[in-house]
Amino acid sequence: MVKKVVIVGGGIAGIYVLRNLLARREEVEDGLDLTLIKRERSGWVSTCGLPFALRGWYEIKRTEINEPKFFLDQGVDFRTETEVTRLNLDDRAITLGTGEELSYDYLVIATGRKPSVPDAVLKSELEGIYTFNNELDAEKIEASIAGAKYAFVRGRGIIGLQAAVAFATRGLKTTVLGGPPSLLPSSLDPDMGEMVKKWLEEKHGIRFILERKEITGVKGDGGRVRAVIVGEGEEIPADVVVIARGMKPNVELALDAGIETGESGGIVTDRALHVKRGRSYLREVFSLGDCTEVIDGVTHRPRLSQLASTVVVQAKVIADNIISDIKAQPSLYSICEPCLSPTVAEIGGLLVGSVGLTTEGATRAGIKTLSGVATKLVKARYFPGAKPLTLKLLFDAYTHKLIGAQMVGESTVAERVNEMELAIRAGMTAEEMRNTERCYDPSLSLLIDVTIDATEKAIGITPVY
Amino acid sequence: MVKKVVIVGGGIAGIYVLRNLLARREEVEDGLDLTLIKRERSGWVSTCGLPFALRGWYEIKRTEINEPKFFLDQGVDFRTETEVTRLNLDDRAITLGTGEELSYDYLVIATGRKPSVPDAVLKSELEGIYTFNNELDAEKIEASIAGAKYAFVRGRGIIGLQAAVAFATRGLKTTVLGGPPSLLPSSLDPDMGEMVKKWLEEKHGIRFILERKEITGVKGDGGRVRAVIVGEGEEIPADVVVIARGMKPNVELALDAGIETGESGGIVTDRALHVKRGRSYLREVFSLGDCTEVIDGVTHRPRLSQLASTVVVQAKVIADNIISDIKAQPSLYSICEPCLSPTVAEIGGLLVGSVGLTTEGATRAGIKTLSGVATKLVKARYFPGAKPLTLKLLFDAYTHKLIGAQMVGESTVAERVNEMELAIRAGMTAEEMRNTERCYDPSLSLLIDVTIDATEKAIGITPVY
Repeated sequence: MVKKVVIVGGGIAGIYVLRNLLARREEVEDGLDLTLIKRERSGWVSTCGLPFALRGWYEIKRTEINEPKFFLDQGVDFRTETEVTRLNLDDRAITLGTGEELSYDYLVIATGRKPSVPDAVLKSELEGIYTFNNELDAEKIEASIAGAKYAFVRGRGIIGLQAAVAFATRGLKTTVLGGPPSLLPSSLDPDMGEMVKKWLEEKHGIRFILERKEITGVKGDGGRVRAVIVGEGEEIPADVVVIARGMKPNVELALDAGIETGESGGIVTDRALHVKRGRSYLREVFSLGDCTEVIDGVTHRPRLSQLASTVVVQAKVIADNIISDIKAQPSLYSICEPCLSPTVAEIGGLLVGSVGLTTEGATRAGIKTLSGVATKLVKARYFPGAKPLTLKLLFDAYTHKLIGAQMVGESTVAERVNEMELAIRAGMTAEEMRNTERCYDPSLSLLIDVTIDATEKAIGITPVY
Repeated sequence: MVKKVVIVGGGIAGIYVLRNLLARREEVEDGLDLTLIKRERSGWVSTCGLPFALRGWYEIKRTEINEPKFFLDQGVDFRTETEVTRLNLDDRAITLGTGEELSYDYLVIATGRKPSVPDAVLKSELEGIYTFNNELDAEKIEASIAGAKYAFVRGRGIIGLQAAVAFATRGLKTTVLGGPPSLLPSSLDPDMGEMVKKWLEEKHGIRFILERKEITGVKGDGGRVRAVIVGEGEEIPADVVVIARGMKPNVELALDAGIETGESGGIVTDRALHVKRGRSYLREVFSLGDCTEVIDGVTHRPRLSQLASTVVVQAKVIADNIISDIKAQPSLYSICEPCLSPTVAEIGGLLVGSVGLTTEGATRAGIKTLSGVATKLVKARYFPGAKPLTLKLLFDAYTHKLIGAQMVGESTVAERVNEMELAIRAGMTAEEMRNTERCYDPSLSLLIDVTIDATEKAIGITPVY
């Protein structure tokens, strides 16, 4: 009998489960009946590409990689602009906003996240204040840039900063409000965050307010926002406002259905991504993406990851496990590796990368650290593209194992983040890292790389340049 | 008492031991008396930079990072244009060509390698035929390019190909002679080597003769070479000839002193790089670099590495162990990790990388392999610099552990080689690699990277693009 898979949510999480199952449909003898329900009217959108569209690199439309038709043509029941109102796990069915009920053999929860909007903003009905979650938001923001002179961003994470860069690039005087002490606190220590701040101030003229202050009011004129009030009454001109902070897992549907959430607020799963209800993990219900809790690869404690890169691995694992279950073939079963959240972002020409714990994250987990910071060119100075990179490495002070890496530079950051992720995963010590050969060609790399310098500094050896 | 360290050889190996000891001299209470003996008249030369100088990117002189004076000024007995004729290990002394004897507390052997020159060439006294080992060779080759129309290179390794590119770039009709089946056989499988060959043929007009043939004669005119005879009598015009093949460890001095060499021809050492004589490793005599055997990180069998990147790690280990021994401080003692020889080279605009075993290397070691090859852009196609990269991964067919990686592309190769090295070292399986997150920003990387595709192909899973 044909098995029915219903996916709730059409962000990258839902779409990637769908794409994996579509690609592997033929492995299942009787085929798969695939349904995806999403709120938005789009097909597959590269949401990570939206900030670059806002910056003017390409049209927003270009981020829609496939329209709904692409999936409909492949026989998927791909429903856009549709709400799910209930998950009836006992009946193996879901209820839609229309009242329609859809039964499933396998259910995938991919309901994503939502920003925490300050009260003062929630109450306002002015035009020009937006979250920045999807292509609809991007279109509204894009439309509001024309004629605007001032932009205001609430949030100093990647999305907030990329939005700020987009505004600044398009000529808007831009202010960013976030908490202390510096930028990107979940990825970077304050000393590294400070480098990003300086870059954005100097190269893009962005102003930062990094204090424990909230938006306490908004002022408008003709139905449009014209200023925000910060804290005790500082008024900052703003023709367009983006709220990009405090992303919370979207778990109402799951909670209503009795599915367990963890201390991070995300849905609890086992390593195979089955959700938990009462005492058991449900063999036929999976959860992934921004609404789902992950297990940290260093501390082995729950947290959120909320990265597209986390999602694509989870989507593979869910596809593996649905197919394994249907075919009763345990060799296909697969699990998620503990999560290290390797992160990279281009922020106004500066590349920022991180993986593993920050110093604050380590302290919170009770881990004492040794740290080393080094700055060096990525290749011999007489070759084109020889730009500096600053790398900070954190080691467990007792075991000397690598537990975190942060970097800021103009090239080679993405690839180095992946490398440092493997070093953390492999439990490499500072001593092993120092004595590990790195490939060399003077036009491409250095004979003694910044990685070695940062490692040696952490363990108190004078680097030889 | 001041301890005397004598280093024999002034290539990258000798220089890096010297630089490490210089940087750490103050750790030793009584100081260090440092002597380096070298044949060449130069100080510290970046030999890896020479092919780029030949290509016209900068002057050959620029590859001399420090002149001898730099070391002399720091109190080093830095002797250039000096031969060592004997190592008298029983007396802890060496004899120079001048007859002078120098005593040592620690001896470092860094005598390098030499190419195997075909008999027909050895016998010739014509101008225009050179090896390509150091800056003297580079100067002679450079001088012979003026007025030359034809170049001939014997050797299809990195140095041979980089020399060929230099000749072709400077307008010489260039032929390369090497064995079958393709290029860079110690780094690349034939299918990957073929990509390099095609690139060099198409972009640089280089002609390849890849057959089991040797130079059987040379023809000259006015004391200068004008042609080489290959095999049974094919005559190929050549105004300049470079011999860059069959690099053999330079071990005469060591052998004469009773130091053991291994099946690879290199000097045998323990993990701390002490050499072996009779039944014991000598606490005060070290060897490193091209003259020294390493232990392979996958097969744990001896082989040669002959890379500058191998040398810099070995130099650190020797400095650690000399200082540890002088201070009787075992915590400073360090060892070399087994060698995976991560390699990268820019060859006429194409970047070639490899680490671990090739298919042939695996077969020789009795390891059955699974392999996957994939080609993909390194980032989303609508961002600048989105160039394709071809990656071949080799896994042990039984354990599914990664044992080798080869790649050809126009960017991100060096960093990926380092990453794959860590994956091999960590014993990562294909299944773990597939389910390991990779950092994502569309302007810098792909959500599902070529690494995942190559991994999935190796284990028979359809990649989802």
